[in-house]
Amino acid sequence: MKNNDISPPPRSLRTHIYEIIFESDTAAGRNFDVALFLFIIISIVVVLFESVETYRIEYQVFFRTVEWILTIIFLIEYILRLYSVRKPLHYALSFYGIIDLLAILPSFLAFFVAAGQSLIVIRALRLLRVFRIFKLGSFMAQGNVIMESINQSKGKIAVFLYFIVILVLIIGSMMYVIEGGRNESFDSIPTSIYWAIVTLTTVGYGDITPSTNIGKFMSAVVMILGYAVIAVPTGIVSASMINQSRKVNGQACPHCGKEGHDNDASFCKHCGGGL
Amino acid sequence: MKNNDISPPPRSLRTHIYEIIFESDTAAGRNFDVALFLFIIISIVVVLFESVETYRIEYQVFFRTVEWILTIIFLIEYILRLYSVRKPLHYALSFYGIIDLLAILPSFLAFFVAAGQSLIVIRALRLLRVFRIFKLGSFMAQGNVIMESINQSKGKIAVFLYFIVILVLIIGSMMYVIEGGRNESFDSIPTSIYWAIVTLTTVGYGDITPSTNIGKFMSAVVMILGYAVIAVPTGIVSASMINQSRKVNGQACPHCGKEGHDNDASFCKHCGGGL
Amino acid sequence: MKNNDISPPPRSLRTHIYEIIFESDTAAGRNFDVALFLFIIISIVVVLFESVETYRIEYQVFFRTVEWILTIIFLIEYILRLYSVRKPLHYALSFYGIIDLLAILPSFLAFFVAAGQSLIVIRALRLLRVFRIFKLGSFMAQGNVIMESINQSKGKIAVFLYFIVILVLIIGSMMYVIEGGRNESFDSIPTSIYWAIVTLTTVGYGDITPSTNIGKFMSAVVMILGYAVIAVPTGIVSASMINQSRKVNGQACPHCGKEGHDNDASFCKHCGGGL
Amino acid sequence: MKNNDISPPPRSLRTHIYEIIFESDTAAGRNFDVALFLFIIISIVVVLFESVETYRIEYQVFFRTVEWILTIIFLIEYILRLYSVRKPLHYALSFYGIIDLLAILPSFLAFFVAAGQSLIVIRALRLLRVFRIFKLGSFMAQGNVIMESINQSKGKIAVFLYFIVILVLIIGSMMYVIEGGRNESFDSIPTSIYWAIVTLTTVGYGDITPSTNIGKFMSAVVMILGYAVIAVPTGIVSASMINQSRKVNGQACPHCGKEGHDNDASFCKHCGGGL
Repeated sequence: MKNNDISPPPRSLRTHIYEIIFESDTAAGRNFDVALFLFIIISIVVVLFESVETYRIEYQVFFRTVEWILTIIFLIEYILRLYSVRKPLHYALSFYGIIDLLAILPSFLAFFVAAGQSLIVIRALRLLRVFRIFKLGSFMAQGNVIMESINQSKGKIAVFLYFIVILVLIIGSMMYVIEGGRNESFDSIPTSIYWAIVTLTTVGYGDITPSTNIGKFMSAVVMILGYAVIAVPTGIVSASMINQSRKVNGQACPHCGKEGHDNDASFCKHCGGGL
Repeated sequence: MKNNDISPPPRSLRTHIYEIIFESDTAAGRNFDVALFLFIIISIVVVLFESVETYRIEYQVFFRTVEWILTIIFLIEYILRLYSVRKPLHYALSFYGIIDLLAILPSFLAFFVAAGQSLIVIRALRLLRVFRIFKLGSFMAQGNVIMESINQSKGKIAVFLYFIVILVLIIGSMMYVIEGGRNESFDSIPTSIYWAIVTLTTVGYGDITPSTNIGKFMSAVVMILGYAVIAVPTGIVSASMINQSRKVNGQACPHCGKEGHDNDASFCKHCGGGL
Repeated sequence: MKNNDISPPPRSLRTHIYEIIFESDTAAGRNFDVALFLFIIISIVVVLFESVETYRIEYQVFFRTVEWILTIIFLIEYILRLYSVRKPLHYALSFYGIIDLLAILPSFLAFFVAAGQSLIVIRALRLLRVFRIFKLGSFMAQGNVIMESINQSKGKIAVFLYFIVILVLIIGSMMYVIEGGRNESFDSIPTSIYWAIVTLTTVGYGDITPSTNIGKFMSAVVMILGYAVIAVPTGIVSASMINQSRKVNGQACPHCGKEGHDNDASFCKHCGGGL
Repeated sequence: MKNNDISPPPRSLRTHIYEIIFESDTAAGRNFDVALFLFIIISIVVVLFESVETYRIEYQVFFRTVEWILTIIFLIEYILRLYSVRKPLHYALSFYGIIDLLAILPSFLAFFVAAGQSLIVIRALRLLRVFRIFKLGSFMAQGNVIMESINQSKGKIAVFLYFIVILVLIIGSMMYVIEGGRNESFDSIPTSIYWAIVTLTTVGYGDITPSTNIGKFMSAVVMILGYAVIAVPTGIVSASMINQSRKVNGQACPHCGKEGHDNDASFCKHCGGGL
């Protein structure tokens, strides 16, 4: 039995509940996950429909009933999680612990804030937990490869964003100087920066467009710049994904058991033993 | 004679028809493919023009006549396919068998449903079958490399889409809380989600745009996020395409057994032996 | 003296003209190239300004004069090219020969067709010829790497476009069935296909947008599809560019002199000799 | 003591000032950098808010006061930099020297030009200097990898842009010939070129859209072309980033001399010797 931080208490009712709620290798555990998945989906669908005015007026009572039933179910589940886990505080402060709590709060919040129950959609984050019900074994591994690649290129992407922010500040101000006064859309620097981001990311809503000739010329330069700029994050992620896929192909070293060797390696890079 | 599932019956009229319709190594077979290609193209062009009101009114009779002639030709072809193939049911339930049937139905459907014949465009899928008439030998192989790459990264793309759906649900709801009430465009969460997808994919129609300052700020964050996000599928496909192109080129050296040779290599780059 | 197809005639006036016009290793040849570059730029700038109504009315005579002077210069140049080259017909039918001719015709065309002189912009293609005036030696080599990469992936891109055309036909028709009648913008299948292309390529003008709920849902699916689809050509070009850059790093074989070896090659792949 | 161009004068008050202002390995130096970072951020935030009309009217005096205080601080800093550095002229003409000066000028410019103080945003460029306050050691290295990749592909990107300019000139003129006269938006070739850039880069504002059928067809072709074209810079940057990441990881094995080891390798993967 592994003994990690969120490990089960000695065999008992608590252990049993733990196995059902936190794990998915028993039949009950799997059924629990599937049920949870369905409850989350129903919960989200209800919120989506409730936000549409025609449905809200007609089915208000029905929507609210379903919402409260599901909120109570999730509340009970949360309490059971706190009860069954060995270190409740540790769980409560973990990533999933916080999400589990956030998923319950919006229903109560709705008493005070108008559009409060819209935040119920935060339950979508819980879908990350029941990911495992899709039996695809490699599904999880694939997700890890993506995560690892993004993680690896985190630093480069942060630097890239730092440059983008500086770039967008300067382009925005220049366009404000050029278009401001002549074009009502560019009425302040923040708006111009918003325009610069819309343009540089190639989203291009068209709610703010240059009207002067020099403004159009500047825009064209920004767009072509955006061309080169969009290549950078793609290049970063591609490069780290290729490195990643190279490592994934590797085999375990027969001497030290470590993985992650290149395809053309003849010796283990960790212990120097032959592969 | 190969003996695969859709193999021809013993040499006879049926065999002859089979060779013409299903294969393309005889002159008749090739001519049949080219004729089929032309009939599909004509059929699609007619539907496209018929959907334009001015043409529809003027040439209605001509369009319908051509459509029915082609439908009858395709019907006869379908019957001949069923007749000539050894396992008709197997064919009828195969991917191409279903498309061949779907290509005939819309004309009859038009008796009941108004825009029914628009579905005739489904015949475009039949173009996949007559692909081979473009004599480019490698054309097919190239298609396979792409297919293989996509196939290989299927898992990663599925995981990616799962995340995108969760992301879009949450962004959409947040924008509904921020803009809803103050901006008529964001009138429900589904609409906000539609906006989130339009923005994150950098399509940016501009039919729905934020009007509040905090909404514009959120949009800018979403766009810059979209920047990083668009890098992920590109990275996935690039990585698997590079792996693919490496494999496609490779063949093991008969002397040292090592792989990874270029397509134009005559000698092994590792041991110098002839390939 | 190299003896390729467009080789110079025996040393004489013709040879001299040939060296100036076609080559750029003499001082006169270089000056000719720079002058040609400037003439082309002036010519294009004049056409751009002439197309703006306020300038056209005011400076008509000036623009036309410059245009005709430049057209006559290009005409003389074209005649000298024909005169000095050894195989005039061969030159006249080559890529650059045709462009050189096309660059002269629009001025005469303007007698017959209204916006004829707009086509003068075709002179921009001549800029490809004077590329070499930018002394960057590697500039040319870099262009070749790009060209080679695109050339290498030509087949894959053709297959990709074939699929895109089929995809866009089907999406367009589906949207016509869904939105047509309920939304004036989707008034015919060709228009719907135009919308599908605008959406799938993430251009997103917003001149045509879905108005029904099911149409918006379909659009969202198309956009997310476009996400994955845009990754394919990028992956293709990236992969071939990486292969290209690997080859570029290679050294010449000391035995057969051929290049293009991989970095890890110990033996020449063409003749099998040690590197 | 390193003796590079912007090296400190002999130990004295000047040396002390130099260490605080130019370096960041002393506590005072680090504090100076953090203070500078905050001043720049405040300065930018003030300019952003001042450009919004409602704030400008209400807080004019406050904004101007803050602006002048900061300008004076930056002026003093600039003078101290000139004083403490060994070669003032060399510093004044360096990249950062010019930015430091440009960061002060706009406040004075505002006496003469209306929107002058908007240019204060140029101070954002100074953020590049205080980059180092983010203690992430690898942060800087990551930035260098990106820079190096872009630098390496500079030539290819220049060639690419040269082609894009030619392409856009020709597409723009063609659309002017097709749409001009029939569509008010395409009123001149420069406007058409602006449209071509908006379309090819997939920004797609929608302020200018084709209205004729042939124009829509042309647009569709341009968009699909843009699909392939956007793949080129991405491919370029990806390829050089992969090469870069390979090099960064590599160090030659002291035993067999082979390169290409991973960062975490302790033993050579080719011969098994310790690194």
